[in-house]
Amino acid sequence: MPFHRQSEATDGMNEARMRRAIERKRDGEPIGETEWEEIVLAYMDERVDDAQMAALAMACVFRGLTTDETTALTKAMAESGEMLRHPNGAFVVDKHSSGGVSDTVSLVAVPLVAACGVPVAKLSGRALGHTGGTIDKLEAIEGLRTTLSMDEFVRQVERIGCAIAAQSEAIVPADKRLYRLRDRTGTVRSTGLVTASILSKKIAAGAHAFAFDVKCGTAAFMSNVDEATELGRMLVEVTARFGRKAKAVVTDMHEPLGRSIGTGIEVIEACEILREDTVDKRSREVTLHVAAAMLELAGVPEPRAAAERSLSSGAAYEKFVEMVRAQGGSERALHDLELHTRREVARSPHGGYVAAIDGRTIGHAAREWSAAERGAGIQMLVRIGDRVEAGDALAEVYGTHADASIVARAIKIDETPPPPRALIYATVSS
Amino acid sequence: MPFHRQSEATDGMNEARMRRAIERKRDGEPIGETEWEEIVLAYMDERVDDAQMAALAMACVFRGLTTDETTALTKAMAESGEMLRHPNGAFVVDKHSSGGVSDTVSLVAVPLVAACGVPVAKLSGRALGHTGGTIDKLEAIEGLRTTLSMDEFVRQVERIGCAIAAQSEAIVPADKRLYRLRDRTGTVRSTGLVTASILSKKIAAGAHAFAFDVKCGTAAFMSNVDEATELGRMLVEVTARFGRKAKAVVTDMHEPLGRSIGTGIEVIEACEILREDTVDKRSREVTLHVAAAMLELAGVPEPRAAAERSLSSGAAYEKFVEMVRAQGGSERALHDLELHTRREVARSPHGGYVAAIDGRTIGHAAREWSAAERGAGIQMLVRIGDRVEAGDALAEVYGTHADASIVARAIKIDETPPPPRALIYATVSS
Repeated sequence: MPFHRQSEATDGMNEARMRRAIERKRDGEPIGETEWEEIVLAYMDERVDDAQMAALAMACVFRGLTTDETTALTKAMAESGEMLRHPNGAFVVDKHSSGGVSDTVSLVAVPLVAACGVPVAKLSGRALGHTGGTIDKLEAIEGLRTTLSMDEFVRQVERIGCAIAAQSEAIVPADKRLYRLRDRTGTVRSTGLVTASILSKKIAAGAHAFAFDVKCGTAAFMSNVDEATELGRMLVEVTARFGRKAKAVVTDMHEPLGRSIGTGIEVIEACEILREDTVDKRSREVTLHVAAAMLELAGVPEPRAAAERSLSSGAAYEKFVEMVRAQGGSERALHDLELHTRREVARSPHGGYVAAIDGRTIGHAAREWSAAERGAGIQMLVRIGDRVEAGDALAEVYGTHADASIVARAIKIDETPPPPRALIYATVSS
Repeated sequence: MPFHRQSEATDGMNEARMRRAIERKRDGEPIGETEWEEIVLAYMDERVDDAQMAALAMACVFRGLTTDETTALTKAMAESGEMLRHPNGAFVVDKHSSGGVSDTVSLVAVPLVAACGVPVAKLSGRALGHTGGTIDKLEAIEGLRTTLSMDEFVRQVERIGCAIAAQSEAIVPADKRLYRLRDRTGTVRSTGLVTASILSKKIAAGAHAFAFDVKCGTAAFMSNVDEATELGRMLVEVTARFGRKAKAVVTDMHEPLGRSIGTGIEVIEACEILREDTVDKRSREVTLHVAAAMLELAGVPEPRAAAERSLSSGAAYEKFVEMVRAQGGSERALHDLELHTRREVARSPHGGYVAAIDGRTIGHAAREWSAAERGAGIQMLVRIGDRVEAGDALAEVYGTHADASIVARAIKIDETPPPPRALIYATVSS
């Protein structure tokens, strides 16, 4: 790994040296590899406090980080906790989504890829803001445990080819601390800091190749395609510095990816995709795209065809059930998932075209309703661009507290059809 | 005072609202008057912590503050502590220097202006970095007290026409806290934040007009004339928003202003200027320029001539002695100030022209030596542009620990003469 030579000889970070590092970043000079490592160490030891770290983070928002700096920061963060190793020389893959609404890609792609003989080791997070979390969704399955020990996690991947477990406290503790700080100091938006946050956890989780699904749109954390592509490029470049492989896809998130929004309700939709019961093409298409990228990274020939066969043969669904069982759930628990009996329908106030869907409002509402009771959430019946008449059903909401009017207001109906949008905006390979 | 309308309805600042304020500043939107007030209040109450404040300060370094924002922040900071009022309708003036080396302007200009019948109320700070502090210098006079109560301070100005006292803890506590934070987070350099820091203390100290001496050069905190002029302009504009008068002068600080550097040794030089014993023209000229600005602000006709008469008549020196006595010192204590008996001479290693003088090194050295023992410090014997031969004396150093080689190395001798420089770069009036 080539790095910038460190900018200052180091014998331990302290307040005065941290101040000079902040000033250099403020003035547009890079921070050296050793210095990034010492900054992270000192921050974890509380020799550097939140105030200095917040000032540095804000300077990074304005000045950016070079690929060298991002690599150094990622490495220092990854090494702040436990680093997993997958045994027996298996080539293990992993995937990451930057967060969206009705994003069931992990639930489907992980067993799908594993069913093709490529081991997948995925540590996931919880819901953040208006977006759902894979861990919260899996926990809607009765009996299923997501808090595996890291040893259990590695052994399950070895035994059945896949696992999705909650991010352990032992993995990248520096990211937990730094992310909380960035969240409250307005310093989340920095391609370098975002890359280090995502990739340090992936590197520590031990896979050899990563597919990054960078969501882009009003219901994602980024809505500018260029910025999202830049994040994808940085993720792929920095992964390469660690001698690992990566592919990034920038996918649309101007509206919920699938039809269902809520924890249990999204597991139901994931099962439909896995069993090929569903007719919703967008979620299936993005899932196949990401799964094919994972297979391609593992050297599987004709990865797209392999991914489709994994679904059509039933192998992907079987692998999903095997993973659910391995983590304490059962197929019965999957069948027991059902929609809440109280239903309301959101209707169009007038005729026209669906022009926009406020995924943030919908995501927040579904998160609240489905956290309160099983089977609650939202099912969208329309997509952006659809023609509707006055009184047509736009969506169904489920649950005691579910309020169809919130969803109806989040769907904008215009007289003219909106311009068409792509589903996949860009692909970045190493 | 016209202000921007506040950007968000406020019912108390908290972590979430502070995060949104930081994000707006980061994205280039101004923060409203009420919000600045609430931010300062919340910071003092510890409802907003150092991390959020540091992130906001760094965003201000990059985005700047509008005149409205700077006014609102200055007001909020000034109101964080005691606000002085000078009685009897007297028009009181004050001056401020942004800090330099061998800067005795306050010691001379304050009694000089008071001797012309214009009351001067000056609260001063201590040494900062390589620059000297007027309070440290005054305390070299045996018996002299600088820690007056604010009541004593106001009464002394009323009684004898002038006082120079240490900044009380009760005046602008928000600045003390914020300055310490900015110092360690690399966020000192922001015209808006610097203006609010300086002006909040001036406003709280109660004078009606201010002369700002913005030092510019390698031995000052700013070395770019445009930036220094911009600070002067902002200081004058924001002062006007408070219905007070101001004039700013940008003066040279590429080398020590006078000949002497150190606490007691600078008081000796100030007395020489006051008694017209000195031949050093630079320090006398800047002092007369600043004093004339103070007199002009108070409506004194022909202010420059009045300032010169105050020196030549002996009135300025008499007023200085009166002030020294009023604060517990004596004329005897002034006469007792003398140079340390141990002296070393810094000599030129070769012939040429004095091309540059590293005022930071010289300032730090003199501060250290003169803090250790009475009468220690440095006397410069050359100025930038002077022709010297090998072995010529460049400076004398005084004190047990004084090291002439440090000073010799700080003086650069070149073959060709440096280009001429101005002494006064710019003047900004309201």
